Amino acid sequence: MKVNGKQYRTVWADELDGPSVKIINQTKLPFSFEVESLINVNDVINAIKKMHVRGAGCIGVTAAYGMWLAANESDRDFSKYETLATRILESRPTAKNLSWAVERQLKLVSENSDKDWSSLTLREAEIISDEDAMWCKKIGEHGKKILYDIAKKKKEGLPVNVLTHCNAGWLAFADWGSATSPIYAANREGLPVHVWVDETRPLNQGSRLTSWELANEGVPHTIIPDNAGGHLMSSGMVDVVITGTDRTTSYGDVANKIGTYLKALAAKDNDIPFYVALPSSTFDWVAEKGGNDIPIEERDPEEVMFVEGITKKGKVERVATSLLSAEYANYAFDITPSKLITGLITERGICTADRNGIMDRFPERRIK
Amino acid sequence: MKVNGKQYRTVWADELDGPSVKIINQTKLPFSFEVESLINVNDVINAIKKMHVRGAGCIGVTAAYGMWLAANESDRDFSKYETLATRILESRPTAKNLSWAVERQLKLVSENSDKDWSSLTLREAEIISDEDAMWCKKIGEHGKKILYDIAKKKKEGLPVNVLTHCNAGWLAFADWGSATSPIYAANREGLPVHVWVDETRPLNQGSRLTSWELANEGVPHTIIPDNAGGHLMSSGMVDVVITGTDRTTSYGDVANKIGTYLKALAAKDNDIPFYVALPSSTFDWVAEKGGNDIPIEERDPEEVMFVEGITKKGKVERVATSLLSAEYANYAFDITPSKLITGLITERGICTADRNGIMDRFPERRIK
Repeated sequence: MKVNGKQYRTVWADELDGPSVKIINQTKLPFSFEVESLINVNDVINAIKKMHVRGAGCIGVTAAYGMWLAANESDRDFSKYETLATRILESRPTAKNLSWAVERQLKLVSENSDKDWSSLTLREAEIISDEDAMWCKKIGEHGKKILYDIAKKKKEGLPVNVLTHCNAGWLAFADWGSATSPIYAANREGLPVHVWVDETRPLNQGSRLTSWELANEGVPHTIIPDNAGGHLMSSGMVDVVITGTDRTTSYGDVANKIGTYLKALAAKDNDIPFYVALPSSTFDWVAEKGGNDIPIEERDPEEVMFVEGITKKGKVERVATSLLSAEYANYAFDITPSKLITGLITERGICTADRNGIMDRFPERRIK
Repeated sequence: MKVNGKQYRTVWADELDGPSVKIINQTKLPFSFEVESLINVNDVINAIKKMHVRGAGCIGVTAAYGMWLAANESDRDFSKYETLATRILESRPTAKNLSWAVERQLKLVSENSDKDWSSLTLREAEIISDEDAMWCKKIGEHGKKILYDIAKKKKEGLPVNVLTHCNAGWLAFADWGSATSPIYAANREGLPVHVWVDETRPLNQGSRLTSWELANEGVPHTIIPDNAGGHLMSSGMVDVVITGTDRTTSYGDVANKIGTYLKALAAKDNDIPFYVALPSSTFDWVAEKGGNDIPIEERDPEEVMFVEGITKKGKVERVATSLLSAEYANYAFDITPSKLITGLITERGICTADRNGIMDRFPERRIK
């Protein structure tokens, strides 16, 4: 997508001064736009852990490029390559795309160990990035129909009100985003859309990233506290909820940013459709149930204690909203059970959030 | 309750240097403890609007004392007294206790207009404050049984985990609080209790006020983002939810701080009891349904845009988590329908959140 008129992906390779992976440092947005160079596997792990890159797809693509650096660092020693892979794999536990990308690069090298590892893995990372972008674009094509159908039932000219949680935008992928992709597609075609953006404490990816993205694309939107969605839904101010996911089981349970489950409950209680948008790389084909099988990351309580933002004088500052002696807990994700989900928007179309619906779209995953 | 070893109410009268109403300025907590003097009705209205005092009971008691200042300012002119009353009444729309206290003071003067208005209204304000404190204390006595019953079913020594939203503590009343009163009662008797404190964006009354209160009373607690409650409930980490309310209809629908409804939905989905604690002054005996009859206050979007807190260097600062060009919405309350509420904890005991349950406890309110 465009930033100040220039086309960007969230992650790309650069070989100008030796091999490096370039990322948009998302912890600096929206207050400054900074491109960061990751020159070794340690840099990659640090960038993922510290959330300079975040979002299921973006983590996956960064890990794919990270495996290129790992291939370079391994001197054709496969056990060394595997060790680096494991370290990348363990940098964050919940997003499925991370392990998906790392395992793909591992398999590729193991099956082609006689070839040039560096060019192999670099090419594969480019393919993974292209696939991610293409899948997200397709999610937009399928998903925009939902918005058009809602618009048909509304008075002409009234915007379709979409509520979203966290950032499942292009910053969370290589490009386009998952939850935002239908919005971008419809908005570019002139369909009036308005987005309620959950600020998404603790790290405020909604107010910091989604709002910035939507503003860059000229999509009207309003930032709300995470507490507000229920009232908006029960007051008729939301037509549809669309979120992303970090991992979705083949039974349709969805792990996504903490708080998603609460919005799904409110949507159900108010008969508002609740969609989850995802490329197939986010499916966990092994996990059966959500709650038991998906690891929920606990992050540093300081992320909850402090809020980072910009002062009226333009200085980036962190403030605590309690006494510094207080205790905080920081669970990063929750599980939205399939019963609350109207449908999954995938690159192959929309399906119900259950085993049958998912297997109809991805029959090659059916266990024979 | 005690602050640094000294007993306080949230509001009291002072006649040392002329009549004034003293309040604890809650916008300064927990970073500094400041007592503010309100010397006229304008000061009172400003303190309520700017939320130097907030919380259903505390607003009511402040308004009651405000009517004493109004009586002083009216020179025995009833229409002047009524005009000042209307202005106090309109300072905030949702909390029922505000109109309840103002109307009580209006009626008192209209029925005793030959007497000394100042001493009449001062005495009535003291009675209202005492009643509020006594009712809240009784809420604690009734409500602590819920905690004891839960404790009986748990392994001995394991704390009862209570989740609460916003501040329905002693700061929200004259003393004791509503939702916190059962917790304080049980904790003082040595029952192990642990409280999950929703930080409660946008104004963070949970992390700022409830946490400060609980720390002063030595109640173990953990601050969580407003997004976390669903995950905690579905993971077995919450035994009971207790919140306050700003207005409750006689059919059991509850208006409370925005976000309460989302927690009630999660409690229902996980079979966790959800109680609302309130003195009878919070009942709206006229409103039938919640959503239609209760006005939901919209406050300044700047409250959402900025987060106030303390820097590591100890300076109170406000930061925005988005670009300053972003749009924000700020609805202050939502409606939790009675179907989601296990029971109401009142000064007369616990009842079901429906017309019959409430009328059984308050038969004098039954329409003949």
